[in-house]
Amino acid sequence: MEQKYKELMNGYISDIENYLRRYTEDKSGNESQQKLTEAMRYSLEAGGKRIRPVLVTEFCRLCGGTPEMSAAPAAAIEMIHTFSLIHDDLPAMDDDDFRRGRPSCHKAFSEATAILAGDALAVLPFQIIADDSVLDSSIKVRLISDLASATAGAGMIGGQIIDIENEKRDDVDEENLRYMYSLKTGQLIRTACRMGCIAAGADDEKIRLADSYASKLGLAFQIIDDILDVVSTEEELGKPVGSDAENNKTTFVTVMGIEKAKQEADSLTNEALEILDLFPDSEFLKALTAELLDRRK
Amino acid sequence: MEQKYKELMNGYISDIENYLRRYTEDKSGNESQQKLTEAMRYSLEAGGKRIRPVLVTEFCRLCGGTPEMSAAPAAAIEMIHTFSLIHDDLPAMDDDDFRRGRPSCHKAFSEATAILAGDALAVLPFQIIADDSVLDSSIKVRLISDLASATAGAGMIGGQIIDIENEKRDDVDEENLRYMYSLKTGQLIRTACRMGCIAAGADDEKIRLADSYASKLGLAFQIIDDILDVVSTEEELGKPVGSDAENNKTTFVTVMGIEKAKQEADSLTNEALEILDLFPDSEFLKALTAELLDRRK
Repeated sequence: MEQKYKELMNGYISDIENYLRRYTEDKSGNESQQKLTEAMRYSLEAGGKRIRPVLVTEFCRLCGGTPEMSAAPAAAIEMIHTFSLIHDDLPAMDDDDFRRGRPSCHKAFSEATAILAGDALAVLPFQIIADDSVLDSSIKVRLISDLASATAGAGMIGGQIIDIENEKRDDVDEENLRYMYSLKTGQLIRTACRMGCIAAGADDEKIRLADSYASKLGLAFQIIDDILDVVSTEEELGKPVGSDAENNKTTFVTVMGIEKAKQEADSLTNEALEILDLFPDSEFLKALTAELLDRRK
Repeated sequence: MEQKYKELMNGYISDIENYLRRYTEDKSGNESQQKLTEAMRYSLEAGGKRIRPVLVTEFCRLCGGTPEMSAAPAAAIEMIHTFSLIHDDLPAMDDDDFRRGRPSCHKAFSEATAILAGDALAVLPFQIIADDSVLDSSIKVRLISDLASATAGAGMIGGQIIDIENEKRDDVDEENLRYMYSLKTGQLIRTACRMGCIAAGADDEKIRLADSYASKLGLAFQIIDDILDVVSTEEELGKPVGSDAENNKTTFVTVMGIEKAKQEADSLTNEALEILDLFPDSEFLKALTAELLDRRK
């Protein structure tokens, strides 16, 4: 399985990176617009795990769809994710000079270019889905509605404003933390899984199961991230440990304690894997889930 | 006509402002998300002429559509316009502390809130069109494709990056200036007129005429803006005159000379009005065109 999983994953990632290049081709011949495209591609090509587009592609396949059906929504969600990273790194937001070991977009280009590259990557996804050549209009409309609502003020962007406002507060409790993450990171993971099903024309029950799997995956991933910041060695984590405590940050470990956090992560992982039993041929997704959630073991 | 025109215009604006409030209702009950909504509404409610949504509504009516058909695209385009103003005013962009006589969004709230309010207003329009209850799926897909492509890197955002890059150059010529404005301000005006026709289910010939009218309107408006900055008194203009020259800015007056600029604005105005002759019942739009383009006379 291990070898086959890696091959499949590499194939998915290579397809996704091809879509991203194809969908960002600059046809203007204008120097300044080419620079904008360069900034968009710089951030899109920074790598990362491509979890969201892989989830779109795989849920589409599990529901009987083809790779052509999931190409547009897969590229679209990676663009939305990338736009959020570019804007999150800006000086007025998290002020991060580095992202995945390279200068962040506003350091590699300029702050103005990074704002506009993020803006373009927030809008282009809707054009890509609308202009797709294989999906039906009614499917496109569902995908666009789902992706936009998962992104806007009731979704990811809502989670970001809560996260920023929480930095000024010292009364952030478990409920607030769960709600914030359910929006900031949870919504895009859920819409990724749902969009895969919708693109394949799946029924509502399949969409509901995919959504439920995604909720558990997203929350477990976040809890484990917080645990790793406390228990890892710097070598294991690939970045400084203990940065949350140093920044006086409220995490699942600070609100729940480390034992309860570990128990909840384990329960969520098992529940997520159980949902996948209801999809035939879900070995790849189980391996992906295990890889994402078993990082400390 | 004057009185009837004003009444119709006030009715349109009041409808549009109602849509904008309805489409930005916060249902979260969360304090931070409410703040985001407040920032979005602060900028949406700053007034302005509402030219773009009025053009959507009026072209929809001229093509036999109802106000219900144009409600979503009209609100959507005003949100895109507002998102661009919020981000344009940011310190890393034009660094404007005031907008329409009030503190700009990042001054009234914070820079982070303004970035996120702009982001939300860039994405929400696509949800509003996708979730509309009267338009067909195929019409929604056309509207979304048209609006997104007019906004992204090949549209308005492309024009913004050219404008910013041009500030560093001293060789901006007439061709470059025309191209920059055709994207930065022209694209949204054109998509406004086209979307009105598309929402009403108009044929391609009507859409082409509306687009041609909009190109002339947009360019004439920009040329007149540049003329006014030179020939107006401060009292007439409502803002300091001569600011372009003071900022050493390339304008249609600097590249064409004032006489040629006036001639071209007059020609474009006449051509725009002639196109409106091809639409029955276009008196309101003619009055609007005359008001927008006759500001100095």
